[in-house]
Amino acid sequence: MVRRPIITMITDFDTTDHFVGTMKGVIYNINPEVEIVDISHHVGSYDIFEGAFTLAESYRFFPPDTIHLVVVDPGVGTARRPLLACSRNFKFVAPDNGVLSVIYEREEDIAVRHIAAEHYFLEPVSSTFQGRDIFAPVAAWLSKGVEVSKFGDPISDYLKFTSPAPQRAGHNQLKGVVLKIDKFGNVLTNIRPDDAPPLFGKNPPAFKIVISQHEITRLSSAYSLGKPGELFAVLGSSGYIEICINRGSAAKLLGATRGTELTLILDR
Amino acid sequence: MVRRPIITMITDFDTTDHFVGTMKGVIYNINPEVEIVDISHHVGSYDIFEGAFTLAESYRFFPPDTIHLVVVDPGVGTARRPLLACSRNFKFVAPDNGVLSVIYEREEDIAVRHIAAEHYFLEPVSSTFQGRDIFAPVAAWLSKGVEVSKFGDPISDYLKFTSPAPQRAGHNQLKGVVLKIDKFGNVLTNIRPDDAPPLFGKNPPAFKIVISQHEITRLSSAYSLGKPGELFAVLGSSGYIEICINRGSAAKLLGATRGTELTLILDR
Amino acid sequence: MVRRPIITMITDFDTTDHFVGTMKGVIYNINPEVEIVDISHHVGSYDIFEGAFTLAESYRFFPPDTIHLVVVDPGVGTARRPLLACSRNFKFVAPDNGVLSVIYEREEDIAVRHIAAEHYFLEPVSSTFQGRDIFAPVAAWLSKGVEVSKFGDPISDYLKFTSPAPQRAGHNQLKGVVLKIDKFGNVLTNIRPDDAPPLFGKNPPAFKIVISQHEITRLSSAYSLGKPGELFAVLGSSGYIEICINRGSAAKLLGATRGTELTLILDR
Repeated sequence: MVRRPIITMITDFDTTDHFVGTMKGVIYNINPEVEIVDISHHVGSYDIFEGAFTLAESYRFFPPDTIHLVVVDPGVGTARRPLLACSRNFKFVAPDNGVLSVIYEREEDIAVRHIAAEHYFLEPVSSTFQGRDIFAPVAAWLSKGVEVSKFGDPISDYLKFTSPAPQRAGHNQLKGVVLKIDKFGNVLTNIRPDDAPPLFGKNPPAFKIVISQHEITRLSSAYSLGKPGELFAVLGSSGYIEICINRGSAAKLLGATRGTELTLILDR
Repeated sequence: MVRRPIITMITDFDTTDHFVGTMKGVIYNINPEVEIVDISHHVGSYDIFEGAFTLAESYRFFPPDTIHLVVVDPGVGTARRPLLACSRNFKFVAPDNGVLSVIYEREEDIAVRHIAAEHYFLEPVSSTFQGRDIFAPVAAWLSKGVEVSKFGDPISDYLKFTSPAPQRAGHNQLKGVVLKIDKFGNVLTNIRPDDAPPLFGKNPPAFKIVISQHEITRLSSAYSLGKPGELFAVLGSSGYIEICINRGSAAKLLGATRGTELTLILDR
Repeated sequence: MVRRPIITMITDFDTTDHFVGTMKGVIYNINPEVEIVDISHHVGSYDIFEGAFTLAESYRFFPPDTIHLVVVDPGVGTARRPLLACSRNFKFVAPDNGVLSVIYEREEDIAVRHIAAEHYFLEPVSSTFQGRDIFAPVAAWLSKGVEVSKFGDPISDYLKFTSPAPQRAGHNQLKGVVLKIDKFGNVLTNIRPDDAPPLFGKNPPAFKIVISQHEITRLSSAYSLGKPGELFAVLGSSGYIEICINRGSAAKLLGATRGTELTLILDR
């Protein structure tokens, strides 16, 4: 039994308009045997960083050879290039605007190509909906086994942004920022265990996280291990320290949004 | 032609974050031949009752052997057990928090197991996203035909809550509550035809439903058979009496939410 | 390898309640080999025009023989008929309320039937959820290859509304309306290139679009080719002139909604 190829989708198109359905129609029209999996269509409009984050959190859980299609494309219709990036395990189809940055960092043997073979595009190519006219058909042809080299030549000058790393401020302080608020109101910081190893070792020191005039001084193992209304920290499933409230929204209480600054101070 | 196994999903994860997509990746990675069907990812955060209701309304319409995966899990990371419940026709994978209560009531030959076989989990198991690390992989292995006994031993002390039944108040009165507001603003009560048989027999008596200072005195067969702005009752597709307005929101007009009390008075 | 049949879905059911999941269960229970593709479940409640528009934008991108299931059905439970419309390439299952109007205009060799063969329905048929009891099972049986003639007889008196066409007002003026606001806040008008050919020819004349006390005087090829805050026009992917702002919501700035009037004045 041959495994059906998988194409995942991440877009900022929302699911109210016809956009996502239309892209799926284009894909099935080229390859009816493919399996299409929605990761999210609710990336904030034009929010390349959020698209990149959503991809980073999910892509590696899919089977080898999955094609990840990411269309967050504020530059649609301009000269920004459509890209095909291939790593050992996955293929990525996306505009050249940095939305694949995390992939360039994390994946092995990455090779990036400028998609230029117009005979794989839908005709005529619009300058307003290239998710339909370029990205969806390229992903579909890829899923049928067309060789990656047929789509265009390798390039190395693709756009890449750097994830905001926490900054050291003295031997026991770390300045961080909020990366993301999740659906439950949990506040994901950009601080990982590797940034503050003592906190996750034996005999961890006392600490405080200062954010929006609040101080968090307790690290717990689970969201539900908090007193009503208590702000505390957990190590989240994405590998970042999160600030949370048991069955409540820490983001709301803190008034925190992406980019809100915070300081982690270790007491040692 | 062998039928593809089906896994349905009900969660409170929303579709904005990567959570649902990541769970699907985990499932396809284990069993690429499965069909995943979303029932709802918009259950209110931590709302076990709403998750149970959504499952109750939909599960029996799926083909035999469907695996229903329900992840509404306020206790994630605590000692609450992951469960596998099997009935004659379906399998259910969910946390032990009462979200399967209706299933225990309605399904025949139900057997409930405590999922303990960690080799079916994703390693390492996080204490914050067990939808990804425990529930999704268990559902995927089940769909590949792993025997239910391999996942853990039968238990009988699982958590179970009772659906709120209408209370008799005198020979012609029934006290009920609102179970649910649907997308259209229809108000689902917990009163069923069996609770008030005369209303659905020949020569039904006059009646009134008193709710939020309003009186409903007409039972119709369809939502669209109402005058503009008129509040009236229908027997809804879920088998409950609903209060509705033709092309309008009864919930909004009444200010009704889940738990709002109401009284049905039969004139006889 | 036999291609899996495709059923698409457009509804106003939203994805919070169990409705869509339940319909999918019904479909898979009849035909486990089908592929179900969501186009949109977020059509405004009872909004037949929006359902028709969503269908019009997407249906032709799907493979031949796709079955399009459209359930926007304010008249559920009344005498309005369930319809099966077949064109050369597609099949459509929907209530007889005008939601297929664009299809009647655009598709070749269209034949419309009144679905009356109750043995294909779910028993008992409710008068409140015929998406589950009539439309989903009919689409599923169709996807299994049941002949269209088995579902009911041809009719010609189906409901059909006319899309609002722009009105000529003098030799150089066109009165139009807003058809749709998309997710990004782009304002889709009902004016197409054929309505104003000079604008899309060589040496296009100066023009202005007057809407909500604003004047738009520039036509660009892409959303992203605008100065911050600038209102301008593009020819959108649906073939209509749109008014947009680069990375902003033209609809919000204009206070425009569906039906807002506008005038296109060519300077010649």
